[in-house]
Amino acid sequence: MLAEEIKKYSIKQLRSLAEELRGQIVRAVGECGGHLSSNLGAVEVTLALHKVFRFPEDKLIFDVGHQCYTHKLLTGRDLSSLRQEGGTSGFPDPEESGYDAFYAGHSGTSIALGVGCCEARERRGGKEKVVCLIGDASLGNGVALESIFSSEQKPKNFVVVLNDNGMSIGKNHSALYAAVSKATAKKRYRRFNAFLSDTFKETSAFGRYLRKIKYSVKGWLNKNSFFERCGFKYVGPVDGHDLSELCAVLENIRAIEDPVFLHVVTQKGRGYAAAEADPARYHGVAPRLGGGENTFADALGGILCARAEKDERLVAVTAAMTDGVGLSGFAQAFPDRLFDAGIAESFAVARAAGMAAGGLRPVVCLYSTFLQRAFDQIVEEVCLPALPVLFCVDRAGLVGGDGKTHQGLFDVSLLRGVPGLDVYAPKDAAEFADVFDFAYGRGKPAVIRYPNGAVPPVRGRMPLSEGALWEILTDGRDCTVLACGARAVARALQAQKLCAPFRIRVVNCRTLVPLDGALLERLASSPLVTFEEGYVSGGFSSAVAEFYARRGIPVRMLAVGAESRFVSHASAEEQAAALGLTAEDVAAAVKKMCVFTR
Amino acid sequence: MLAEEIKKYSIKQLRSLAEELRGQIVRAVGECGGHLSSNLGAVEVTLALHKVFRFPEDKLIFDVGHQCYTHKLLTGRDLSSLRQEGGTSGFPDPEESGYDAFYAGHSGTSIALGVGCCEARERRGGKEKVVCLIGDASLGNGVALESIFSSEQKPKNFVVVLNDNGMSIGKNHSALYAAVSKATAKKRYRRFNAFLSDTFKETSAFGRYLRKIKYSVKGWLNKNSFFERCGFKYVGPVDGHDLSELCAVLENIRAIEDPVFLHVVTQKGRGYAAAEADPARYHGVAPRLGGGENTFADALGGILCARAEKDERLVAVTAAMTDGVGLSGFAQAFPDRLFDAGIAESFAVARAAGMAAGGLRPVVCLYSTFLQRAFDQIVEEVCLPALPVLFCVDRAGLVGGDGKTHQGLFDVSLLRGVPGLDVYAPKDAAEFADVFDFAYGRGKPAVIRYPNGAVPPVRGRMPLSEGALWEILTDGRDCTVLACGARAVARALQAQKLCAPFRIRVVNCRTLVPLDGALLERLASSPLVTFEEGYVSGGFSSAVAEFYARRGIPVRMLAVGAESRFVSHASAEEQAAALGLTAEDVAAAVKKMCVFTR
Repeated sequence: MLAEEIKKYSIKQLRSLAEELRGQIVRAVGECGGHLSSNLGAVEVTLALHKVFRFPEDKLIFDVGHQCYTHKLLTGRDLSSLRQEGGTSGFPDPEESGYDAFYAGHSGTSIALGVGCCEARERRGGKEKVVCLIGDASLGNGVALESIFSSEQKPKNFVVVLNDNGMSIGKNHSALYAAVSKATAKKRYRRFNAFLSDTFKETSAFGRYLRKIKYSVKGWLNKNSFFERCGFKYVGPVDGHDLSELCAVLENIRAIEDPVFLHVVTQKGRGYAAAEADPARYHGVAPRLGGGENTFADALGGILCARAEKDERLVAVTAAMTDGVGLSGFAQAFPDRLFDAGIAESFAVARAAGMAAGGLRPVVCLYSTFLQRAFDQIVEEVCLPALPVLFCVDRAGLVGGDGKTHQGLFDVSLLRGVPGLDVYAPKDAAEFADVFDFAYGRGKPAVIRYPNGAVPPVRGRMPLSEGALWEILTDGRDCTVLACGARAVARALQAQKLCAPFRIRVVNCRTLVPLDGALLERLASSPLVTFEEGYVSGGFSSAVAEFYARRGIPVRMLAVGAESRFVSHASAEEQAAALGLTAEDVAAAVKKMCVFTR
Repeated sequence: MLAEEIKKYSIKQLRSLAEELRGQIVRAVGECGGHLSSNLGAVEVTLALHKVFRFPEDKLIFDVGHQCYTHKLLTGRDLSSLRQEGGTSGFPDPEESGYDAFYAGHSGTSIALGVGCCEARERRGGKEKVVCLIGDASLGNGVALESIFSSEQKPKNFVVVLNDNGMSIGKNHSALYAAVSKATAKKRYRRFNAFLSDTFKETSAFGRYLRKIKYSVKGWLNKNSFFERCGFKYVGPVDGHDLSELCAVLENIRAIEDPVFLHVVTQKGRGYAAAEADPARYHGVAPRLGGGENTFADALGGILCARAEKDERLVAVTAAMTDGVGLSGFAQAFPDRLFDAGIAESFAVARAAGMAAGGLRPVVCLYSTFLQRAFDQIVEEVCLPALPVLFCVDRAGLVGGDGKTHQGLFDVSLLRGVPGLDVYAPKDAAEFADVFDFAYGRGKPAVIRYPNGAVPPVRGRMPLSEGALWEILTDGRDCTVLACGARAVARALQAQKLCAPFRIRVVNCRTLVPLDGALLERLASSPLVTFEEGYVSGGFSSAVAEFYARRGIPVRMLAVGAESRFVSHASAEEQAAALGLTAEDVAAAVKKMCVFTR
């Protein structure tokens, strides 16, 4: 295990290993897609942590996980299968390795997890160190802030390493960042550091001595009362690419019991020229083969720009996902009407509620998996006062390579019971525009959900209206397939020919809330197959079953949807196949219902 | 409107009004129940805000709302009907009055709402002031912290008033509190203030002059870089019961455009000796008439103490609800095994995950309405790694007087689709103990949900086991009533005699996840009535309907549950009646099914 071997490495050997690992990361991300910039920035700090600490006895907690590739390489994982079905996860995964203390897909939780680990260790009488490696963007998240401010005392043998690359996924203007960075102190320290490096070689005894002084001088230069007040000894800032310095500082930290907040300054995309120049673009990289387009996200940008031209009230809100949700064009066209909250979904949603109360029409654009972090604000701040906030929810359904921590499988069960909240699922990008106008026009809380990746356009376009909520796409008589969501509709249409000799009526159930009650009542005597790319539990199938159950109407229906389980990385198509959500699965369900009925 | 009249009041008149309002608040809470200590503490600061600002043109945003009674009295609300059906809400409610800018039941959102209001105003070109009144406990919540740290700039004409009573619902040890309080500076200021008051009468011109200086001196004494760095001008601390000082400071603040953070120090329970002496006890007060006991909460305390004796690993975790969930006894018996996170539900749950990973067995005790703030941590931190965290969820179902913002109506739809999470709903306090042991014994993530208030014990006790998940309580043949939750079971039993001539089989469906599949399959040929005190949408009825739909089993079932709408304050019984959730409603459903079947 490389993680063991490097304990004997010299700084020079570590440096050459760092370059080698960088090459492996660039190659793997090029082949398989993944997070590039953040991982390139964290190579040295991860190496130094592994050199100094004894994982997995000591605990290493990532926050978030998209800086874990070096850690994976050091602990025997193979990046050539990164994010592929059966291959290496793109995030820490305790099932994959005992070196991964926790999953880490959503930001801000490492410090809380670490505090909990320490409390358990104290009760047990253990001695291990607990180390969190947290990005600067994660630090601004509410969970991280709650954890930092929760107590004036922090546990012993607890180390928080801030990997500060000076930018979150986008740019970081937060006050917290200002508090942490203290540009002047940093400049002074850098001047001092440059002076040392220029004047004395590292190998000279006097140079080494001066470096020792430096660490205490630095503390004096940059006394950070912010973290001291929260119970940490603050150390930093340290050059996060200087292995010699990193190892020395970490050795010192390891030797003491006090809780330490170590501030490490890194460069995102380090060592890969293109990523250094434009780290945001290389944050998440699509694999070389296949896909990459995201037609709903593209459509969103176009829709918002066009509507914003006509409606002064329209503003866009997101939470560190500007590019991902398709708002780059909007950001350029309407820079003062885009509000990026950073990784602070709760703040983003509550602020949007305030904007709506003040007369604006905010469109909140989030991934499904992150929307779930703001559930309470959706209920209490948006839906209770019935404010006109429109949520555009990308990555709804199966997300592919990001895997377990990022699936968009909860939003339907979360949202469809919230009073006064409409929920839509358009069948393709063209219908997205219709649905957007319909939802926006109603001036009440609403959610439009749609998957990532390319979705083929579906022929036929019957605009959504109060009297025509759902759309009958094909009119076979033997069985009705109620399909909800773009991928489900596409697969239901594919299933037609697989159902022979039975002919199916495919319905595009583009409104989850409200359901098309008139149509459902008409269909009650037909055998029904409900189909969605999501959990049956609390999902669309559940909504249909419940519609009839509330009215005491007996129906013959069969639900095709996913069992409630966490879904690992693979392509979205592979994931759908593993869950029984293909056109073939729909056809099998249809046949079962038709044979049964005859 | 008193709010208008007081603009002409002298300080002396305001003082006498303050005493009068205090009396009204004490009387109303004595009659109707409600929040006493926090409201008594906020009398003067609310009076001063109304004297100086022009609400509702200026916006007053409470955080949280349990300090709003003075505001309600000033704006024409009648507290004699406080929390009663059709009466005055115990929290701000925009439907009740145009003076209530937002609902405010959950903590920490005011600053985000205020920022949003200001952003809307700037786009509109408005001039109104936006004022947030936030308690010190709310300030430690993640949403508030995200909002404070989101940007180095805060909007113009934005005022955050911190009502600092030095304690949250319980006691406050947070680092944030330390940052805010700065005891030494406060002491120095108080000495200075006392010197001024002792030396010069307020009426003397020189006294007034010195007071003016005082405000600038104070700024110098207590330069608070914490808030300055976040874009606020910091003013404080100010004596929150000194109307003269409050009005003077607020007049100054109103005259400038800069965003201001005003730090006001108040005394919880002020003016009511018993509440001053023990403010936590008088935080929430039960009405003189009726109820008050909470048997599940009482049971929880007993269960945890008994199990903690035997199992060293058991620890309890809560979030500023120690008394409310029934942990006071546990807190005394095992002070080092109770972890109160303050109003930081996300931190509480993520920390519990860390504890569980470290070998402890945390029992997280929260109200249903606040649990929904930690949904993402339940999924990502607890259930994904399948850590043995047990959630005891109080106030599940209808909560009575707290009303719309506090109903426990979302947890079922939120939680029952989360992979690997068991969900239980015991029928009474005795069964709670069985269910607790069963759930705890399985060593996986689990939720036990139960209502507040007294619940009568139900005869018969068939302990829960893997082979007997549900319990058949009565064995009528005409129709099966599947009842889930303590109140539903009690009412289903009451419904028996109302169903004549039909006889019903009442089943205690004490496990929501997993369902008792074997029993459900056996019952498929019987007419079924499902019954729960909750939303049908995504709820228990939905789970049953979906069970059959997944298997393509046709059933005759009728769901008795609530429509998805927000439920105002009233007694829980009145709320149940309004939603159609009484024994009579069950009987009507049974009759419908039986007549239909014949």
